[in-house]
Amino acid sequence: VSSGFFKSRWVTVPEHVREREGGGLPAGFRAAGVAAGIKPSGGKDVALIVSDEPETTSAARFTASGVLAAPVLVTKERCRLDALRVIAANSGNANAATGRPGLDEAARIQGAAAIIAAVKEDQVAVCSTGVIGVQLDGNAVGKGLLAARGSLRPDGDADATAAIMTTDAFEKRVTLEVDLSGGTVLLAAQAKGAGMISPNFATMLCFVETDAKLAPETADLLLGVTVKRSFDRISVDGQLSTNDTALLLCSGASGVEVAPESEDEIRFGEALDALLRQLALEIARDGEGARRVGRVLVRGGNGEGVERVARAIADSPLVKTALNGGDPNWGRIAQAIGAALPGTAPLAYDVSIEGTLVCSGGFGVPVSMEALSLAVQREEVEYDVTLPGEGFETEVFFSDLGHEYVTINAEYTT
Amino acid sequence: VSSGFFKSRWVTVPEHVREREGGGLPAGFRAAGVAAGIKPSGGKDVALIVSDEPETTSAARFTASGVLAAPVLVTKERCRLDALRVIAANSGNANAATGRPGLDEAARIQGAAAIIAAVKEDQVAVCSTGVIGVQLDGNAVGKGLLAARGSLRPDGDADATAAIMTTDAFEKRVTLEVDLSGGTVLLAAQAKGAGMISPNFATMLCFVETDAKLAPETADLLLGVTVKRSFDRISVDGQLSTNDTALLLCSGASGVEVAPESEDEIRFGEALDALLRQLALEIARDGEGARRVGRVLVRGGNGEGVERVARAIADSPLVKTALNGGDPNWGRIAQAIGAALPGTAPLAYDVSIEGTLVCSGGFGVPVSMEALSLAVQREEVEYDVTLPGEGFETEVFFSDLGHEYVTINAEYTT
Repeated sequence: VSSGFFKSRWVTVPEHVREREGGGLPAGFRAAGVAAGIKPSGGKDVALIVSDEPETTSAARFTASGVLAAPVLVTKERCRLDALRVIAANSGNANAATGRPGLDEAARIQGAAAIIAAVKEDQVAVCSTGVIGVQLDGNAVGKGLLAARGSLRPDGDADATAAIMTTDAFEKRVTLEVDLSGGTVLLAAQAKGAGMISPNFATMLCFVETDAKLAPETADLLLGVTVKRSFDRISVDGQLSTNDTALLLCSGASGVEVAPESEDEIRFGEALDALLRQLALEIARDGEGARRVGRVLVRGGNGEGVERVARAIADSPLVKTALNGGDPNWGRIAQAIGAALPGTAPLAYDVSIEGTLVCSGGFGVPVSMEALSLAVQREEVEYDVTLPGEGFETEVFFSDLGHEYVTINAEYTT
Repeated sequence: VSSGFFKSRWVTVPEHVREREGGGLPAGFRAAGVAAGIKPSGGKDVALIVSDEPETTSAARFTASGVLAAPVLVTKERCRLDALRVIAANSGNANAATGRPGLDEAARIQGAAAIIAAVKEDQVAVCSTGVIGVQLDGNAVGKGLLAARGSLRPDGDADATAAIMTTDAFEKRVTLEVDLSGGTVLLAAQAKGAGMISPNFATMLCFVETDAKLAPETADLLLGVTVKRSFDRISVDGQLSTNDTALLLCSGASGVEVAPESEDEIRFGEALDALLRQLALEIARDGEGARRVGRVLVRGGNGEGVERVARAIADSPLVKTALNGGDPNWGRIAQAIGAALPGTAPLAYDVSIEGTLVCSGGFGVPVSMEALSLAVQREEVEYDVTLPGEGFETEVFFSDLGHEYVTINAEYTT
């Protein structure tokens, strides 16, 4: 296993998974990214990803927000989500809070991409990321897609990634080789995101392609399980985007099948799980000026309580600023627990930081603050919380809160 | 009405209420604040407030946190909350997450104050604010209380206020004259708070005294209603303290009665309401480096939804950083609404900023950004959100999020 992409101790990389040097797309896929004038910077802002295999299967997951961007509504409502062949994406404008005109523009982009790629409209997923509340010029995106068609390449994943990046400080892209019983398949991903919503540039997008052959139900099952363990478990600032979209397209071009309930399904699922968890951690790590990433692991006898406590800690600005400052201030963990579980006092809870028990049964344990201070100044910091009872466990990954977050979000004036 | 204390357009000051120049306590009360060595700075850190009237009535409200500090547990469980006569408070140490020893120290302080003030133990409320998770030295507080007894004065409210302040940038104290049918009574308050929980120094405390004569039920009713409209409606950083306490003591020494269901009950309630709302706004304004205060007012047909949306906006780091930057970025309001109401898309909502409609039925309205930018750079900024339906309305006051919050909370290392 290469150490290049998989950096975190919180991701288990199976032995049958290797990073492929140089990237590139799985067999059957081509991609491109071009500059179409949507981003004020003039950078790449329109991405086109196409599967040339008519029998491509797919699965999709979207943001749970009550305020959905136009491309999310169009893709959810007008697509065969189990048979997507094309992804048409733009950055620089989220096409969110744009009403009926925004829906028309999203549909126009979908139609243009369908003609350009010679597929049906309902096989084209559209995605946008960028400023909210400003009308998107669908014609400009359409022209970009036309230009992109001319540059579609099997190694176009880097250009497509560049075309969906906004405030991202670094690229989130990888190609993996996955050994299955019938042979080796490729699994590639291109993602963007740095803050659930950044100042005006929004959203997490993740496009995953494989040349393995999966039934639509298998693709849906595996994407659903792995998104729950990755993008659903990160919090940069507790905010939920209007545009979040994760797509998995399976061309089947390798001829290697991932059969339902087979050993290969487990192996492929493990690879997808490691891939999405590392990508999710990359998004948290890129969290708008983030210095370190924390993981809070909460155990206890009440599933809802465990979830609420984990979210309260991960979203607490006090916990996040302490993480930024490399401060092992567990009093802030205690207050987040209390706030998440009102009316339960006196509550017997334990808190450990980097394996050191600092609070037992609800009150402080004498510890060496020097050793603890050093432990919380590393790149990844682990917090473990135990609530009364047993049977439930959850985790949330989160970034810290520092001056750069404020600079990006307060000093960036419209 | 003096413009000194009542500064906000969001507080209605009744004509029968005047600020009393020079402060001072209502008849029957004396107070003192001394330095007892709890605060590392050597500043005042022990406050004693005493009613000399045996028939004093009272009411109390506490934090809803599931992690309650020892003084909150002791006061809630061991006091006659309708007949409190003494408040013994310290700053510099919250006596929270201190387990059984912490409860013993809180009880020791309560006992010492009872002896010192010659009242029963169950008439002494104890309050602490400061660092969490460190044992409080009850003997030191007891010595401070003894010293304070010697300096008890009818105008000791300023010293008592100084002794409960922690990260507060300014004093939160006032004395009001309230005209009732039977004569004029005094209503005084001393509060502290700047952040629901600040780095290690925690909590909102508010002590209110009057020389009006109230039945305990009346005191409880009025405190309950007005706390719900003040301290329950502010959010500095979405955090809930382990120690929050609001106390109302009524000495009756003026001889002026506030009878249940009388016109005077309304008048007294209006005065208490204005008092606590302005104090709550002062706490938000003092929110650890806050530059401005926002109010979000949400209307709609679903009570729970209205509350969730108001809290989501007030607690959103993106909304708070925009407020700090004086940026009328309503896209962040839209995403907070969506995040608070998952699964409701497409949602028809309106957003106005300082009276200007910026989003109607879920999408943007063309507005003059220049005018709007000026409007959001004032000290108070109003956001109005209308959700579908009618019948429910709520408000939350919140501070912005700027560099100073990060500096205070990240760079203050234990």
